[in-house]
Amino acid sequence: MSFEEFKPLNEKSLVEYIKATPALSSKIGADKYDDLVIKEVGDGNLNFVFIVVGSSGSLVIKQALPYIRCIGESWPMTKERAYFEATTLRKHGALSPDHVPEVYHFDRTMALIGMRYLEPPHTILRKGLVAGIEYPNLADHMADYMAKTLFFTSLLYHDTTEHRRAVTEFCGNVELCRLTEQVVFSDPYRVSTFNRWTSPYLDDDAKAVREDSALKLEIAELKSMFCERAQALIHGDLHTGSVMVTQDSTQVIDPEFSFYGPMGFDIGAYLGNLILAFFAQDGHTTHGNDRKVSTIFRILICMFIALWDQHKDGPGEAYLADIYNNDEVLKLVQENYMRNLLHDSLGFGAAKMIRRIVGVAHVEDFESIEEDKRRADCERSALEFGKMLLKERRKFKCIGEVVSAIQQQS
Amino acid sequence: MSFEEFKPLNEKSLVEYIKATPALSSKIGADKYDDLVIKEVGDGNLNFVFIVVGSSGSLVIKQALPYIRCIGESWPMTKERAYFEATTLRKHGALSPDHVPEVYHFDRTMALIGMRYLEPPHTILRKGLVAGIEYPNLADHMADYMAKTLFFTSLLYHDTTEHRRAVTEFCGNVELCRLTEQVVFSDPYRVSTFNRWTSPYLDDDAKAVREDSALKLEIAELKSMFCERAQALIHGDLHTGSVMVTQDSTQVIDPEFSFYGPMGFDIGAYLGNLILAFFAQDGHTTHGNDRKVSTIFRILICMFIALWDQHKDGPGEAYLADIYNNDEVLKLVQENYMRNLLHDSLGFGAAKMIRRIVGVAHVEDFESIEEDKRRADCERSALEFGKMLLKERRKFKCIGEVVSAIQQQS
Repeated sequence: MSFEEFKPLNEKSLVEYIKATPALSSKIGADKYDDLVIKEVGDGNLNFVFIVVGSSGSLVIKQALPYIRCIGESWPMTKERAYFEATTLRKHGALSPDHVPEVYHFDRTMALIGMRYLEPPHTILRKGLVAGIEYPNLADHMADYMAKTLFFTSLLYHDTTEHRRAVTEFCGNVELCRLTEQVVFSDPYRVSTFNRWTSPYLDDDAKAVREDSALKLEIAELKSMFCERAQALIHGDLHTGSVMVTQDSTQVIDPEFSFYGPMGFDIGAYLGNLILAFFAQDGHTTHGNDRKVSTIFRILICMFIALWDQHKDGPGEAYLADIYNNDEVLKLVQENYMRNLLHDSLGFGAAKMIRRIVGVAHVEDFESIEEDKRRADCERSALEFGKMLLKERRKFKCIGEVVSAIQQQS
Repeated sequence: MSFEEFKPLNEKSLVEYIKATPALSSKIGADKYDDLVIKEVGDGNLNFVFIVVGSSGSLVIKQALPYIRCIGESWPMTKERAYFEATTLRKHGALSPDHVPEVYHFDRTMALIGMRYLEPPHTILRKGLVAGIEYPNLADHMADYMAKTLFFTSLLYHDTTEHRRAVTEFCGNVELCRLTEQVVFSDPYRVSTFNRWTSPYLDDDAKAVREDSALKLEIAELKSMFCERAQALIHGDLHTGSVMVTQDSTQVIDPEFSFYGPMGFDIGAYLGNLILAFFAQDGHTTHGNDRKVSTIFRILICMFIALWDQHKDGPGEAYLADIYNNDEVLKLVQENYMRNLLHDSLGFGAAKMIRRIVGVAHVEDFESIEEDKRRADCERSALEFGKMLLKERRKFKCIGEVVSAIQQQS
């Protein structure tokens, strides 16, 4: 069997592919193919995902198809996204190796990634949050991932030659960016056949979003920032469904939307989804998802500043050591940078909240609430908070004030 | 003679080159080579520029050398800049054809552009301003050039696919961007062997710039915006020495620093240099360079908004017609966009003023003041105004307030 041109794999051809690929077969072990267990688990919207478990090893094969899987061939989507996913998994994996699964193999023609299988009890973080499970190391781990991947791919560490080279490469992932532009920054604010919400309860709320000029002003600024500002190599889809966890392990997956964009888009995606989890609990604070927001952000800021201090004489060209040459000026610019990052994160986080309530893709946190009326009430609270946050984000001086606002809103 | 690999031309080989190149020889006319008058006039810092005038036609040949001409081979600089210059001359020329000289020929190997000779009485705008000459159409022409080149290469007109493609191409001009980063955003704020100023009069002033934490905070934000924000295809060096004028004609030349950057960098360069011209007149307002600042900016804003209104249903994806779907919301976002653009322009303009007084490259406006003490006094006023503008730019609600501030400072 030849794999010299693209073809979607099935459970049978997958085994042939693994046999023909030493980087993969070595993980399974020779002559161990008879008892292989293969399971297709792509519950995402875009790809095939096969779990391959043998007696002496395991792996995951992820293959991108040239369209969005859940919609079908009517919504084409370049399979080149697999190239950007693999490239970012490797880059982010080199920067935060404990929190990104190892890539064993990438085949651009086949749009195929062979990577570590995140064995049980790894579960999707969102499912864990819905179930009310606590992950004691989660904030530390996510802060490590975000601080390192964002810092080291920004001009705080890159010289501008390296930065523009890297930006150039990821400009190629424009189709995936365009999908984000549409579903996050555009569709929720206009009539679109893709939008849905808990009807009829939220009909007026959805309409109010489409008629809110102040909200449209803010979303336009964020959309332009998303499209124009190459601040760091961001994951691009860092919600709680892109993180797999156990009590000890936190693994960030699925960076196919990655590109050089604003850092706040990643931080905001994560914070916004934590806030959604809070509102999905009907205002009860038993699981502490409100406090999770401040904990992760505070640790992230500390780690980020520590990296900055540590590498202030490094290759980064945004703040040159012979200009920012004393503690006073360094502290001044760091505080300013972090305040701007907070505001960007709150804005993008709010945008991500809003789109999950009145846009195309919803979240299990709310979907798992069976009764429509009760779900709508939770969603309305989250939506109102998201709208307030998007409009008022610049008034928040620290993450603590955001948590207070969450508690007041609920 | 072969021109298949790069070689610097001289007045003799230049004629051979023209003869061998129909796009150029057709401008001169056949058999007219005996009475050709060739003059090398590259008074810039980077290139050779030959004016070629025959009895039936004329042209200019501009050739980039692989180093900065005025410093020599010790400061290498890619000759690929000629590619970006030619590409932008053609792109901007298509958008504002009355204000960009026609390109007849481009040879990437030879880093050579053949283009329209801007015949006498065309003169460098800066020289005209120093001489106190009035150009009645200048503001209209420059507003036309800036409004059209910036609007049509931004996401107000581009879809994001076209935008990222174009951004990718111009990421290649990173070496020229790095030169700007150094001389505009870095060197004036640190000890650098390239810096110079009117010494000893401005010794303390230069030191004060290097010790001003608030100033360093602002210049860092602008540097990051310059490096990260791909808002439009900007000229990249739009000072009054990059414009040639007569009473009727205004021609923008030398876009070798062009790339996708913040619009405010172009507008600010032009405004900042007009403000420098004002301060070089020792505070006398006879030439009205203060009022020139408000006139050009107001016309620019009007033209820009008119283009936006005209193309609001066009391909641009920043403000989609079905979201910004009534006059109220459209006016709201336009005013916000223009206020941000004013603030960006004032910041970059201030940075350009400062660097012309304490950085490597100075301006004839001041240099033509022979007496050191008097020159230093003018420069100090301009420097103080630049510093104030950089720190306080967000407080200005309109360009009129800026002109009032100029008049108060002088």
